[in-house]
Amino acid sequence: MAHDSSTSLTSISQLGEFGLIEHLTKDFPAFDARLLKAVGDDAAVVKSPGEEVQVFSSDLLLEGVHFDLAYVPLRHLGYKAVVVNLSDIVAMNAQPYGITVNVGLSNRFSVEAVEELYAGIRLACEAYQVDLLGGDTSSSRQGLVISVTAFGRASEEQIVYRSGAQANDLICVSGDLGAAYAGLLVLDREKTAYLDKPDIQPDLSDYDYVVGRQLKPEARIDIIRRLAELQLKPSSMMDVSDGIASELHHICRQSKKGAKIFANKLPIDHQTVAVAEEFDISPTTFALNGGEDYELIFTLPVSAFERIKAEREITIIGHITDDENLIQLVLETGQAVEVEAQGWQHFKS
Amino acid sequence: MAHDSSTSLTSISQLGEFGLIEHLTKDFPAFDARLLKAVGDDAAVVKSPGEEVQVFSSDLLLEGVHFDLAYVPLRHLGYKAVVVNLSDIVAMNAQPYGITVNVGLSNRFSVEAVEELYAGIRLACEAYQVDLLGGDTSSSRQGLVISVTAFGRASEEQIVYRSGAQANDLICVSGDLGAAYAGLLVLDREKTAYLDKPDIQPDLSDYDYVVGRQLKPEARIDIIRRLAELQLKPSSMMDVSDGIASELHHICRQSKKGAKIFANKLPIDHQTVAVAEEFDISPTTFALNGGEDYELIFTLPVSAFERIKAEREITIIGHITDDENLIQLVLETGQAVEVEAQGWQHFKS
Repeated sequence: MAHDSSTSLTSISQLGEFGLIEHLTKDFPAFDARLLKAVGDDAAVVKSPGEEVQVFSSDLLLEGVHFDLAYVPLRHLGYKAVVVNLSDIVAMNAQPYGITVNVGLSNRFSVEAVEELYAGIRLACEAYQVDLLGGDTSSSRQGLVISVTAFGRASEEQIVYRSGAQANDLICVSGDLGAAYAGLLVLDREKTAYLDKPDIQPDLSDYDYVVGRQLKPEARIDIIRRLAELQLKPSSMMDVSDGIASELHHICRQSKKGAKIFANKLPIDHQTVAVAEEFDISPTTFALNGGEDYELIFTLPVSAFERIKAEREITIIGHITDDENLIQLVLETGQAVEVEAQGWQHFKS
Repeated sequence: MAHDSSTSLTSISQLGEFGLIEHLTKDFPAFDARLLKAVGDDAAVVKSPGEEVQVFSSDLLLEGVHFDLAYVPLRHLGYKAVVVNLSDIVAMNAQPYGITVNVGLSNRFSVEAVEELYAGIRLACEAYQVDLLGGDTSSSRQGLVISVTAFGRASEEQIVYRSGAQANDLICVSGDLGAAYAGLLVLDREKTAYLDKPDIQPDLSDYDYVVGRQLKPEARIDIIRRLAELQLKPSSMMDVSDGIASELHHICRQSKKGAKIFANKLPIDHQTVAVAEEFDISPTTFALNGGEDYELIFTLPVSAFERIKAEREITIIGHITDDENLIQLVLETGQAVEVEAQGWQHFKS
């Protein structure tokens, strides 16, 4: 049968996740004259009548791949499943207004457990003022499966793609980087310790910030609102789901540009630094390759500098260059090293 | 842990699939003034500027629950996954224009196998002239998972809800009923026979129509186009995914009406009748409770009779009554029996 593995067939890991989806979708025709952007950005963009565009994004979250119920409470999982999709809408500089949620549940889930999941979904709807537009539940033989689609809108001129970065543009990030990955490492360590000695309750009070960043991320809608107040529109933008090394590669590839960033500019929380030291990993590695921060990375013309330099939630980490697809990290020694795209490669696990 | 099963918790099968989703979504607030319909119909409806509305629907398909790769070729599965979502858009009397597709794949799938799946998705996009707007692939520890969201649009006045049926309206169905379920029974029998005697190739030539209806359903966009040509707008409409007994209960409950249908009017293909006889089940049962036909069931005012009586693809099977929530089937003997909602209850399996 076609889906049996065989030595003559190509394994998915040979292509990798990004390669696979590009390979699969490259030949699809475009029918709709109102389609402005299909695959290849944080979300799809379709024109509505007038100046408005519709923005769509969807994600599939699978137990054992994207989350581990051993340390993710169902309420947090519901919240996060919504937020990560809203983050994609926000990364287009659009306003989310609704979601659909489909859930597959195996027999081991009770109604009360599913209520917890939906309580988290509802909390996110309330926090971001978005509507639950539909969705369904069905049984699953395979553990918990969550599929969320998010819907947003904006005026056409507001939309920010990955492809608009210009040489000399400032590269900015919101918040801080690497904390969600630090939280994941801590939770994973505690899970292992718990499995060894179930009678010892973990004390995570020294790790509250990084664990919170892993379990309850937020979509930075406040940042796009602030930029609008400052009358600034980014030339390119993405949300940080796979780590800024990976996101910068996307922006540079689509903008046909390069980037130079500075290690001593990367915003890293002191708890993230502490966890990095505990695990004997460089905090810079956390900041570059740690996924799931759901911060925004965006580029602004140099002329924006005066308006953003005092913004506490925005950090300038470098600038765009003309060296196509070359991403350089300037270390504290002054030495520049090339940054590889790494990111989450689920298929390699 | 909250998701462990325990005697004090409520099992999902106690509520059933419809009960669960109603229970989970009933308290969600509505934020968006432009939201016309959220949960509870075939698709959600949100106003765009001007007279246009956006229509959204999404579905999750899980291996072992919604499909069995032992007899569903991946290309057919890709096609069907798209079509069942387009069918929901069509059932709102709207024009589908795009889809997003997220796929979870376990290691046993090769790139070539996933190409087959996407070849089917692409065939459906071409057949219905809809765009692939986005989506992703990720690994799955749990077999194949497919999540599709479909996007459509219409003028606000075109939209048809489940709730508009009026007493004396004609109840109409497109095509014929029960064939997809007949096809499923045949495929399941052949699978069992194959597992017993793998050296005997099944001969399905006597079953080509019903097997085709199961493996390659179509969304009846031709029907809504024909109704528009006839200048007819249904007062209520649904697509037949769970069987017309279940769909009629939805229409009657939301319209606060009843229905009377006639067994000898139900359109049933002769192959469906033959399979029903082989399995010693009444063909009427197939037509009432067989799912996955993806035909349309809709109601029209009596005044439409002259315009539709000659339509070969539309059959009048009965009429709407004032007996709220009472659905009666008039047998060939003239006796009227009450029809229970049955439909697919995935959680009971």
